[in-house]
Amino acid sequence: MKIAILGMGSVGRGLLEMIDGKDLGLTVTGIADSKSALLDPDGIHIEEVQMAKRERGVCGDKELSAADVVERGDYDALVEVTPTDARSGEPATGFMKRAIERGKHVVTSNKGPIALHFATLQSLARKHGVAIRYEATVGGAIPVMHTLEHGLAGNRVIAVYGILNGTSNFILTRMAAEGLTYAQALLEAREMGYAEADPTYDVKGIDAAIKLVILSNTIWKRNVKLSDVNITGIDMLTNDALRLAEEQHCTIRLIAEAVPEKGILRVAPRILPRTHPLVVENTLNAITIDTDMAGEITLIGKGAGSKETASACIGDLLFIRDIHARGH
Amino acid sequence: MKIAILGMGSVGRGLLEMIDGKDLGLTVTGIADSKSALLDPDGIHIEEVQMAKRERGVCGDKELSAADVVERGDYDALVEVTPTDARSGEPATGFMKRAIERGKHVVTSNKGPIALHFATLQSLARKHGVAIRYEATVGGAIPVMHTLEHGLAGNRVIAVYGILNGTSNFILTRMAAEGLTYAQALLEAREMGYAEADPTYDVKGIDAAIKLVILSNTIWKRNVKLSDVNITGIDMLTNDALRLAEEQHCTIRLIAEAVPEKGILRVAPRILPRTHPLVVENTLNAITIDTDMAGEITLIGKGAGSKETASACIGDLLFIRDIHARGH
Repeated sequence: MKIAILGMGSVGRGLLEMIDGKDLGLTVTGIADSKSALLDPDGIHIEEVQMAKRERGVCGDKELSAADVVERGDYDALVEVTPTDARSGEPATGFMKRAIERGKHVVTSNKGPIALHFATLQSLARKHGVAIRYEATVGGAIPVMHTLEHGLAGNRVIAVYGILNGTSNFILTRMAAEGLTYAQALLEAREMGYAEADPTYDVKGIDAAIKLVILSNTIWKRNVKLSDVNITGIDMLTNDALRLAEEQHCTIRLIAEAVPEKGILRVAPRILPRTHPLVVENTLNAITIDTDMAGEITLIGKGAGSKETASACIGDLLFIRDIHARGH
Repeated sequence: MKIAILGMGSVGRGLLEMIDGKDLGLTVTGIADSKSALLDPDGIHIEEVQMAKRERGVCGDKELSAADVVERGDYDALVEVTPTDARSGEPATGFMKRAIERGKHVVTSNKGPIALHFATLQSLARKHGVAIRYEATVGGAIPVMHTLEHGLAGNRVIAVYGILNGTSNFILTRMAAEGLTYAQALLEAREMGYAEADPTYDVKGIDAAIKLVILSNTIWKRNVKLSDVNITGIDMLTNDALRLAEEQHCTIRLIAEAVPEKGILRVAPRILPRTHPLVVENTLNAITIDTDMAGEITLIGKGAGSKETASACIGDLLFIRDIHARGH
């Protein structure tokens, strides 16, 4: 299968490394970063691109752009792994639409387009007989979309609960374990490289809420928006509250929660028994899917990371190759 | 899709209830219990069968048997949910082979045939262009086979660790929580209906070992046997050992573990930190899959139960309908 990759950040580089190191039957015929692009219908030499990126800071030809790859590239699936723009979802959404209109499958790790334009993208993909897959947008390496789509097929999903942001989970873990204040734990998260200079997106629950929107729309096709989510972050949490919870064999986690029957769609700090399957430590993510037949199924794994996100994208690509491609 | 069901125990009855209550597009054209059978190419009236079973103790015609259903039934997939015979795997294995030779797909919850004859059944299914699926044999409602097959596609699996027996996990949970002795906790498990009169199979680690064999052969195609597993049960465990573990923020769980690179294939009580994702309570099951890209992915859910096992069988049936049936 021929693929074109947009984005040479952490995910794009991880993807190239995995494709180069494994015999997955994937040929890369197009690559673009923010300043350049490269096209070769016979397959791009991955190690040369990696070296160019490292040494010159660009992966290819500055005369070419992502739009050229999308428009002129010879590929079966577009892998869109540029950084998330949560406000407009652009330019990623535009690229995905063009690829779909050209009859190409799309795989993405980009939360913006899926949270903002899921229904549009899905119906466009259906119209053109291609797949749009986005396993990497929620829970990193955790194959939650595959589980919803196939593993739990036939089940009615009643609710979904998740720890969907590793940064805030790390902060809460450290506050509970060491009695740190929120400010101290945030500082530690920054030192470990888990929190960005501006941690708003993570600690205020916005990142988790975007993922909750994606999960909800996948499960219930309800077309909810970020503004529909009731959001409380962890930045006002005191270590007194945590100590109180711990004294009663509980702890506090930032839980994203959707229970349509009860009208619940929220991200907020919640008290949970320490033995609850959702209570994971440090930067791990966890998702519980509550169903009518299977009961509660919980999935735990790394919510971020270059290789881990690449794993999710590769799972999507191989599924397209093995399943969707059959029909053609 | 037309299906035939062998077995009217807890799983078979759960399956009928789910198929009757949901609009899954599955038509039951054959049913057999140990004493009778019923065939109707136009679709059996499920509620009548349920009533017959409740009132007369048999589901159908005593002149007919499971063999008649397998041999003469009009079905696309055979659902084999008779009780496990871990020694011979019969008569289930024979029925599955005949169905496959007739070009029918097979779905089973029966551990015996899969643990004993996996390679034979798989190659026979390949030869006849049909699928054999067995999600329900390991971890109850947990979709571990789907996860291995698709969710983690492209990953190399390095190791698998699991709590695969709910009865022994319940006993260990109660010993740790209440300081009970093994004998007291076993008594409680019996009273709750979690342990059978003869608990050997569960507490000596044999059930977990059979599931480990199935997982290992699925992942690594190595054709290991139950006799290859190094087994230690929980029946010799003292509550002193548990108290010692708990004092160090750890606990003891019966872990099934396969790490081919290290030559490890064993079921044994192991000390784990209480915060480890595998440490689940009561009768829950948990499986950690350690991979090269996705890292450790843990799946938690109910390991047994009528509806839960039906959920796994239905996931398999819908996968066959949506995926395998496409090729035909």
